[in-house]
Amino acid sequence: MDRWEPLLRGDIGKMAMMVTLLSDGREEKELVQAVRRRGYLIVTGKVGSMDPQKVVGSIESSVKRQALIDSDLYREEHALYHAMMEALLGISRGQISFGSVLRTVGLRYTVLRGLKSPNAKEEKDWIAVAMYGTIGAPAKGAEHEVMGLGINHI
Amino acid sequence: MDRWEPLLRGDIGKMAMMVTLLSDGREEKELVQAVRRRGYLIVTGKVGSMDPQKVVGSIESSVKRQALIDSDLYREEHALYHAMMEALLGISRGQISFGSVLRTVGLRYTVLRGLKSPNAKEEKDWIAVAMYGTIGAPAKGAEHEVMGLGINHI
Amino acid sequence: MDRWEPLLRGDIGKMAMMVTLLSDGREEKELVQAVRRRGYLIVTGKVGSMDPQKVVGSIESSVKRQALIDSDLYREEHALYHAMMEALLGISRGQISFGSVLRTVGLRYTVLRGLKSPNAKEEKDWIAVAMYGTIGAPAKGAEHEVMGLGINHI
Amino acid sequence: MDRWEPLLRGDIGKMAMMVTLLSDGREEKELVQAVRRRGYLIVTGKVGSMDPQKVVGSIESSVKRQALIDSDLYREEHALYHAMMEALLGISRGQISFGSVLRTVGLRYTVLRGLKSPNAKEEKDWIAVAMYGTIGAPAKGAEHEVMGLGINHI
Amino acid sequence: MDRWEPLLRGDIGKMAMMVTLLSDGREEKELVQAVRRRGYLIVTGKVGSMDPQKVVGSIESSVKRQALIDSDLYREEHALYHAMMEALLGISRGQISFGSVLRTVGLRYTVLRGLKSPNAKEEKDWIAVAMYGTIGAPAKGAEHEVMGLGINHI
Amino acid sequence: MDRWEPLLRGDIGKMAMMVTLLSDGREEKELVQAVRRRGYLIVTGKVGSMDPQKVVGSIESSVKRQALIDSDLYREEHALYHAMMEALLGISRGQISFGSVLRTVGLRYTVLRGLKSPNAKEEKDWIAVAMYGTIGAPAKGAEHEVMGLGINHI
Ligand SMILES: [Mg+2]
Ligand SMILES: [Mg+2]
Ligand SMILES: [Mg+2]
Ligand SMILES: [Mg+2]
Ligand SMILES: [Mg+2]
Ligand SMILES: [Mg+2]
Repeated sequence: MDRWEPLLRGDIGKMAMMVTLLSDGREEKELVQAVRRRGYLIVTGKVGSMDPQKVVGSIESSVKRQALIDSDLYREEHALYHAMMEALLGISRGQISFGSVLRTVGLRYTVLRGLKSPNAKEEKDWIAVAMYGTIGAPAKGAEHEVMGLGINHI
Repeated sequence: MDRWEPLLRGDIGKMAMMVTLLSDGREEKELVQAVRRRGYLIVTGKVGSMDPQKVVGSIESSVKRQALIDSDLYREEHALYHAMMEALLGISRGQISFGSVLRTVGLRYTVLRGLKSPNAKEEKDWIAVAMYGTIGAPAKGAEHEVMGLGINHI
Repeated sequence: MDRWEPLLRGDIGKMAMMVTLLSDGREEKELVQAVRRRGYLIVTGKVGSMDPQKVVGSIESSVKRQALIDSDLYREEHALYHAMMEALLGISRGQISFGSVLRTVGLRYTVLRGLKSPNAKEEKDWIAVAMYGTIGAPAKGAEHEVMGLGINHI
Repeated sequence: MDRWEPLLRGDIGKMAMMVTLLSDGREEKELVQAVRRRGYLIVTGKVGSMDPQKVVGSIESSVKRQALIDSDLYREEHALYHAMMEALLGISRGQISFGSVLRTVGLRYTVLRGLKSPNAKEEKDWIAVAMYGTIGAPAKGAEHEVMGLGINHI
Repeated sequence: MDRWEPLLRGDIGKMAMMVTLLSDGREEKELVQAVRRRGYLIVTGKVGSMDPQKVVGSIESSVKRQALIDSDLYREEHALYHAMMEALLGISRGQISFGSVLRTVGLRYTVLRGLKSPNAKEEKDWIAVAMYGTIGAPAKGAEHEVMGLGINHI
Repeated sequence: MDRWEPLLRGDIGKMAMMVTLLSDGREEKELVQAVRRRGYLIVTGKVGSMDPQKVVGSIESSVKRQALIDSDLYREEHALYHAMMEALLGISRGQISFGSVLRTVGLRYTVLRGLKSPNAKEEKDWIAVAMYGTIGAPAKGAEHEVMGLGINHI
């Protein structure tokens, strides 16, 4: 048992948020491996933009490139898309707009695919998208933290 | 240095979310003490309801009872209120309604007061409200995880 | 020319807001008369509630009782309803909820019917709903000002 | 081939709306049978209320009672729930509130389960929720039509 | 009596949706004529874009070019604008954004002008805007159906 | 006592709206001076755009240039930002979008800093942002009035 294991106990959303909050430096690799040992597919990354479209596109690309979803099935893309939208509603607190209201975001994200809860095998795969970072004025260090979580059946 | 300290490094929002995610059992007391050692006021609690009003009222009551804000100053209540609203937008992903659309929530929450970032002394006190739990149908275990974070200057 | 006349120059929305902001005491009657001399129908009132439904119902009742709209025509009621909704979006800043998020409002309102602009005769009648007052916690004087304006063709 | 068949050609959403729009009188049974011949599960019904909760509860009950979804699987309930929410956003045009802003709805609804498009077999089952009816003031015939459509993978 | 007539019975919104759903091929001309025989002005068209502005502009242009509204009267343009906004809230299910969240739409639309209900002559003219089509990722056939309906007095 | 003084009596929001409504011509200077005599910092200006970002940027620039807020403190910028967002929700009545839905705005604005109410010294400084002007189609004089007010502790 590794040292991360106790922190990752729980449901898919908690795990996704834990990885996002903790994967700040070199621990990222260990965290990803610990999540995989628990039977989940995982993709992590970073994206910064004034443009929600870039955040969506960047996450979608990594997720497909790393085959967390089946790119040939729209139903999987649809599940991912709505999970991202729900996470972005937490990030933007009500209206998914950044640059159009003169804000920029810098985000780390984690996408997980697997059981919603360790015991809920009959519920099959779910997807969780966690985002954590900052939002603020584009020109200077004027920003505060934001977090968003979206969960969907897949 | 206690074992929680490395997990609590970072800004006020990350700390509030970490406590909320981790304070599942007997570790809660230790976490609260570790946060206090870092110089923050902290209030934690649980609330379950179909009624957003009860969530707001319950958090506001604990926060005042434990003097995290000065109950005689509306400006502090105003800061708390908007931080709660932003956290609830993450929980509800767009429209703060639970029972009126036949959903119920079960939430743990953490409210922190102190520096936005460890070094940002000139920025004075900020408030962070983190909520984590489940949302779903009221009658059965049909639910998934949700998280919300709201941050405000105070 | 009375002393209010210069303050009421302008379009229907400005006039409705001016009356709402100024009609604090005994000047209310004079203001209403000055507006009527400019050729507008006017209804003013007050309403306080945690319930958006009561605000809507109270304004609708006065407006019909004083025959600012023709109660037999749904198209006039429809024009009023959407103008009220737009004013309430300004009051609530995004989601028309008061008590359900533990807020209460105390509002003065003015409803005007007449030309959108003094010269725009061909544009026929428009309706303006202005609301001004406070929003805040229900139990104490913890509140700040809010204003909303809705305008519609009728 | 029956007379309804040409009208029901197309994707799942179009079919759900057609049935909702047409099932006004005795044709309802024929329509339902024509949809079933195309390989879809279908539930139709009516609900009138000032309370979004009643609309959601009423549709959810019929859908479960008639086994369009598997009541033991939360993932199916979750798919239905979000499809209903999306349909209700069309009905309410932005904020799912009826009675709280003094409106009432009278709706017919159709829920379909099956292929998203006749040819998209690899995309498995989707769910469509169509609603059509009126929204308006609660006390009199002051109302106009509304329609909403929500679609989700299941 | 033509074969479309029974399908077009009902109020202005139902008629607008029926035409939109059915006018897939060569029947479009017949449908438009059947609607005109019922005493309504009608404009139909198609628009595809990642940009809500283009959808709004395209519909507004056809409607003016075909004189469904009087271009010299802002009150008619205002009625059309809000009806389009309401239809787009159904299309986007809550926030009118397409490209900014990496979605594109392909829509057929119908705009009708005339009586709200066949018998409601005293209610004068209303306008209905119906839209039906698909929303989805811009690069591939990854999309599902959407529908929106907006109704306003004019 | 000057002639404007009676009109400016009241709380910070009312004062901000009064100045915005009245500062149409040469009275602007007098109004600004009367507000300053009451102990408030004040910035007024005009901005017209299809782009919410330009409205936000323009107000933020004047406010900083005229030192109504301390540009080195993010907490003051944060207070201003949320007050502007709340005012813009009144202007846009629900979703802060102009050009993306083919609308343009022409606005006068007033930003005040000082006591929330004349007597509420213990509540320290608050900020009020009032905006008044028109919204409408970009190409012609097709527009109606809009007003927005946002208030925050600073
Ligand atoms: Mg969900
Ligand atoms: Mg903020
Ligand atoms: Mg308008
Ligand atoms: Mg979808
Ligand atoms: Mg309406
Ligand atoms: Mg406030």
